[in-house]
Amino acid sequence: MAEVRNKQVILKDYVRGYPKESDMIVTSSTLKLKLPEGSKGVLVKNLYLSCDPYMRGRMSYRDSYVDSFNPASPISGYGVSKVLESGDPNLKEGDLVWGMTGWEEYSILNATQGLFKIHHSDHVPLSYYTGILGMPGMTAYVGFYELCSPKKGEYVYVSAASGAVGQLVGQFAKLLGCYVVGSAGSKEKVDLLKDKFGFDDAFNYKEEPDLDAALKRYFPEGIDIYFENVGGKMLNAVLLNVRNHARIPVCGMISQYNLEKPEGVHNLVQVIVRQVRMEGFVVGDYYHLYPKFLEFIMPDIRQGNIEYVEDIAEGLESGPAALVGLFSGRNVGKQVVVVSRD
Amino acid sequence: MAEVRNKQVILKDYVRGYPKESDMIVTSSTLKLKLPEGSKGVLVKNLYLSCDPYMRGRMSYRDSYVDSFNPASPISGYGVSKVLESGDPNLKEGDLVWGMTGWEEYSILNATQGLFKIHHSDHVPLSYYTGILGMPGMTAYVGFYELCSPKKGEYVYVSAASGAVGQLVGQFAKLLGCYVVGSAGSKEKVDLLKDKFGFDDAFNYKEEPDLDAALKRYFPEGIDIYFENVGGKMLNAVLLNVRNHARIPVCGMISQYNLEKPEGVHNLVQVIVRQVRMEGFVVGDYYHLYPKFLEFIMPDIRQGNIEYVEDIAEGLESGPAALVGLFSGRNVGKQVVVVSRD
Repeated sequence: MAEVRNKQVILKDYVRGYPKESDMIVTSSTLKLKLPEGSKGVLVKNLYLSCDPYMRGRMSYRDSYVDSFNPASPISGYGVSKVLESGDPNLKEGDLVWGMTGWEEYSILNATQGLFKIHHSDHVPLSYYTGILGMPGMTAYVGFYELCSPKKGEYVYVSAASGAVGQLVGQFAKLLGCYVVGSAGSKEKVDLLKDKFGFDDAFNYKEEPDLDAALKRYFPEGIDIYFENVGGKMLNAVLLNVRNHARIPVCGMISQYNLEKPEGVHNLVQVIVRQVRMEGFVVGDYYHLYPKFLEFIMPDIRQGNIEYVEDIAEGLESGPAALVGLFSGRNVGKQVVVVSRD
Repeated sequence: MAEVRNKQVILKDYVRGYPKESDMIVTSSTLKLKLPEGSKGVLVKNLYLSCDPYMRGRMSYRDSYVDSFNPASPISGYGVSKVLESGDPNLKEGDLVWGMTGWEEYSILNATQGLFKIHHSDHVPLSYYTGILGMPGMTAYVGFYELCSPKKGEYVYVSAASGAVGQLVGQFAKLLGCYVVGSAGSKEKVDLLKDKFGFDDAFNYKEEPDLDAALKRYFPEGIDIYFENVGGKMLNAVLLNVRNHARIPVCGMISQYNLEKPEGVHNLVQVIVRQVRMEGFVVGDYYHLYPKFLEFIMPDIRQGNIEYVEDIAEGLESGPAALVGLFSGRNVGKQVVVVSRD
């Protein structure tokens, strides 16, 4: 079997503060395109890689719900891959899968439990399995529907609203008949929220010196559901504007991931005053709902009721810049890295 | 009908910072012992008054889940009262009730919806209806059983653990087979937790310069359930010691009520990392469960499986000192004020 040069993205060392493109290098090693004897895993060719905020945690050496990256190996993350060889009878050569893979051209995955077989149809781009049809889609679905029990007419606020998850939460809430406002960090993103995703309103948080005042303007009646993606000052301001029995699914706190000392949240007494439920969740606990999710979302995608915006970076070499760009908000929509289109 | 001098506790003005005994005065006014013509309410003689931390919120002028006190009227709170005259066919002269009443010798209560009729038995002191058999008992029950879905063997931490609610939460958890540690602010209270309430362990938080280190010592395996009564620094330290899927029912944050600017909680990212559910609640939303609660707790009281410690202040004149004493931890156990024993 052929040996190939396998291009890879390696983390040079654990990161403190904001990650930089130069914290990673793109290098290559030699790989024999063959599964080890007796392997129950798969050899895959990686097509699309997903850039997700939670990956920041893996760049640090610390206790988290995901392991730290190993600085000697390629980093890993969600991606869409094509099976070249399989030791798992449920997968065969040519199958498409999504799940955890390496940031490299080819990966040998020793276990297949976390992989989802893609039943691909031409209605959707394959890259969607890094986003709306993959982990971020499930995250939006679980966080909004499973954790919030949302009702028509409720007031929903989404931060980081044009991102991989936020754009979906806002659209789910609109489809249900909620009043939805999103915030994002540029005029372009704010326009996207209002014009493409159909949010009732949207604002640029960078232009709001007083977030509490901004929220009072956009939610004079208060907030029933806050889909938490950013944390810190934003959460602090939201707590001053929640209605009774508000729900805050805590999906991410991207504003805090690069700080040596996270910001203090001072208004937690509101959790009692307004009987708020804040709930952190990890989408991996809910993957048994994935078939139900696909049934829910596929018709809306086909009928054009749900839009999805991706920000596509071409080539594995563009991976490090694409990944660190998440933390300065460079991406507009879901950040994807194309390794190969087939 | 006789006119009486009706002794009353009045809040002189809204309070900032720690309340002082001198923020209230004990005065008296004249009251005709007769319901107004056509009233559907009750005229009651107040027997026992309950001192509860949430009352601090009512001493400030601000938006909360309970109204601010009216500085011109006697303050109000939970209490046990005897009906002298009733305009409600479900209550008659001589009946005992618990619920919201005035801090005064006699009260005219215009509505009876919030009153619970006491079916008194000699097995329990009547004052228990301000504590274990009243609002604090229901609070412990709802916060622990309804919000936490606790399981045998789980690690439970209770702050303000010798107080009206905490002492019950710890005992409920022990009866269920949990491992329970409590914290309190004096050696006397810590001894009570261990010797009388049967906590597995207890510590004096005032003697722990590093709360994170203390919790790591008492919970080397981490915390499944934190019954939150204090907020601030304690919550911050707990978040560093939670296990996956920890539950934090937020009952109170007594350490924060007297601060002009509440402390910042910096470790909320742990809510995601450990998939924590924090939930504020107000016991008033759960009073439909009161009959179920009585069925649950009465046998354990009769059989001596549950202890309850009260701190009894004699006479309405002692009310202001008893109430402000909550915020310096002067009370040992549930703080009650006796207005009259019958």
